[in-house]
Amino acid sequence: MPVGNATFPPMHPVPGFRLGTASAGIKKPGRKDLVIMAFDQGASVAACFTRNAFCAAPVQVGKAHLRDGADIRYLVTNTGNANAGTGEGGLADARRVCEALAGLAGCDAAQILPYSTGVIGEPLPVDKILAALPAALAALTENGWDDAGLGIMTTDTRPKGASLRVEIAGKPVTLTGIAKGAGMIKPNMATMLGYVATDARVDNALLQEMLGRAVERSFNRITIDGDTSTNDAVTLVATGASGVAIGPGERDDFQRALDQLCRALAQAIVRDGEGATKFVTIDVAGGATSGECLAVAYAVAESPLVKTALFASDPNWGRILAAIGRAGLADLDVAGVSVHLGDVLIADKGGRAPGYTEAAGQAVMDEEEITIRIHLGRGSAHETVWTTDLSHDYVTINAEYRT
Amino acid sequence: MPVGNATFPPMHPVPGFRLGTASAGIKKPGRKDLVIMAFDQGASVAACFTRNAFCAAPVQVGKAHLRDGADIRYLVTNTGNANAGTGEGGLADARRVCEALAGLAGCDAAQILPYSTGVIGEPLPVDKILAALPAALAALTENGWDDAGLGIMTTDTRPKGASLRVEIAGKPVTLTGIAKGAGMIKPNMATMLGYVATDARVDNALLQEMLGRAVERSFNRITIDGDTSTNDAVTLVATGASGVAIGPGERDDFQRALDQLCRALAQAIVRDGEGATKFVTIDVAGGATSGECLAVAYAVAESPLVKTALFASDPNWGRILAAIGRAGLADLDVAGVSVHLGDVLIADKGGRAPGYTEAAGQAVMDEEEITIRIHLGRGSAHETVWTTDLSHDYVTINAEYRT
Repeated sequence: MPVGNATFPPMHPVPGFRLGTASAGIKKPGRKDLVIMAFDQGASVAACFTRNAFCAAPVQVGKAHLRDGADIRYLVTNTGNANAGTGEGGLADARRVCEALAGLAGCDAAQILPYSTGVIGEPLPVDKILAALPAALAALTENGWDDAGLGIMTTDTRPKGASLRVEIAGKPVTLTGIAKGAGMIKPNMATMLGYVATDARVDNALLQEMLGRAVERSFNRITIDGDTSTNDAVTLVATGASGVAIGPGERDDFQRALDQLCRALAQAIVRDGEGATKFVTIDVAGGATSGECLAVAYAVAESPLVKTALFASDPNWGRILAAIGRAGLADLDVAGVSVHLGDVLIADKGGRAPGYTEAAGQAVMDEEEITIRIHLGRGSAHETVWTTDLSHDYVTINAEYRT
Repeated sequence: MPVGNATFPPMHPVPGFRLGTASAGIKKPGRKDLVIMAFDQGASVAACFTRNAFCAAPVQVGKAHLRDGADIRYLVTNTGNANAGTGEGGLADARRVCEALAGLAGCDAAQILPYSTGVIGEPLPVDKILAALPAALAALTENGWDDAGLGIMTTDTRPKGASLRVEIAGKPVTLTGIAKGAGMIKPNMATMLGYVATDARVDNALLQEMLGRAVERSFNRITIDGDTSTNDAVTLVATGASGVAIGPGERDDFQRALDQLCRALAQAIVRDGEGATKFVTIDVAGGATSGECLAVAYAVAESPLVKTALFASDPNWGRILAAIGRAGLADLDVAGVSVHLGDVLIADKGGRAPGYTEAAGQAVMDEEEITIRIHLGRGSAHETVWTTDLSHDYVTINAEYRT
């Protein structure tokens, strides 16, 4: 049960960036589960990968290919199998997929980045993937975003996309992206798969720097269950087809658009979080450092007691105070801390706010979208994190589905 | 649904330590909810309190009374209301309870340690407590452990006690204790209430040092939901009535007995964890430091994905690897990590162990008591943590009960 009635938005094609989707029958026959993305020589590519030490084979291969400085030409993604926890055999499997695609497409295997998502610990069904590569290549089109959005899903209940047209240096530039993810979501970098393309021209170093910033403010600020996946990756491709070059004079405009796009995709993942019935914004201000704002935000966002109270629409502010109190801040003066539910001041000076009424708190908790605002009263740092509640459906989904 | 069929053990009285239980009607009429413990002048008292910054009013008052070096004579505990998140008014209420008991008992208010557990954020019903103090005082007896075990419960489904008779320096010494706690359990110090008494004679400084060690190896090694409570306290009283003095020659024997008792109480809390269907031991060896063993143990113990797999009796070792991988260990070489479920080697060298079969893993997961053994392959540190699964009942209990 996702939060809200989000529809897949109209997706502006990105000149020079094509997508092809096919069914390889990896987990379910007939399900779209293989996506190829292609772009011409000269495009710039930036990527952020999971920091999980048990990172999946495709992540290891993809990082090596990017490090080699190869001119990346293709991204290939399968769902239904994560190719993670598969040891040396998994690395060989990921390389076999790249080599087969390179053979069909007439490029080098090192010019391909592989991605996998799905069950951990099962051998990748390489033969099924190789058999479906020609169909995915044949389907390549600049209008392939909708099918690709479906083709990268696992426990997602709906595809997630965002698309922007902005003007930079007086000319139109397009940014379009898709993402998947519903569980094992605690980004560090980003616990999901995300693909963003733009027709701006940006050199690799600047592209990587700007992607890093955007991810830090979007995918790295969401948590569903505190579990960082083994397979996360966000990739940004700049085809340059618009002829708009991003230099020092244009980078702020481009960064703003990229931030907006990544935030929309990250929030779409939270709204579709496993078992989610609430979309929760946790806004922590007044910290001495960003780090302590995040420590408090995540302590609240990941507290099973806060999350079950959110599921019950219970304005249980005592659990919020308890989570703040255990976030590990040195010498926190609780008398300086205030907590708002929406616009309602519920707690200050270490206890319930004098004017607070249960009815006012209940009205906020009854909403599907809830903001918890915490002021720590000891500095000027500010951070925002997005999360969901913890419902019976989360337990059901994860007691039945094998990641 | 607690794990196992634990019965309340026979409780050896501790000479010089008396307990009285009464019904104050704080939350439910007729329920035992007020416990007084009393001991004569000259007893030593040590206590460890929660490190939650939003610690409850009775914790603040109790710490101040202990710091004042007063000769503590009484412990007074109510359930049904935590007197936490109650600001200045809460402190005044905790002091009023101490003053009233002091007046009845003929001692100073500073010689009393107050404890509360239950709902956070509601004003303490002081009048109800004061009205029941005489009944609790009248009930004081060295055989009062069973009633007191019931009197300190909140969402617990059964009382938790442990009792030992050991020989130290050739003479018998008794250690007896009770504890409560089922949710909001992630000790830092200890997320619960625990009371232990002994008739050994131990000076205050040594008693505090030994309690600190025992708590570090017991209550500080359990987690149910990662949420550290606002009210935790473990208190150890040494009446000295046995005439056995604990000095340098006896401290190892006494520490061993105290460790055993505290571990039994801590494990009893885990077995009665909210919604628990499994009792899980997470044993991490081969770390470079204790700290990194604990980081891995808690990452696994608190992973909602691992916990829901445990609930489903699913030998989903991929989720265990993913949790180890995100525990934040610098330069973790996953090829050196091995994971056993019980005695079954399930993963090594970054993937599934060659001889592993799903049937072997399933047989372990079907048990009610499960040990996950992780070897990090990079040092000689070793730590053990105890936890539970995450079930539908956990969500139900916490979506319905207001802590």
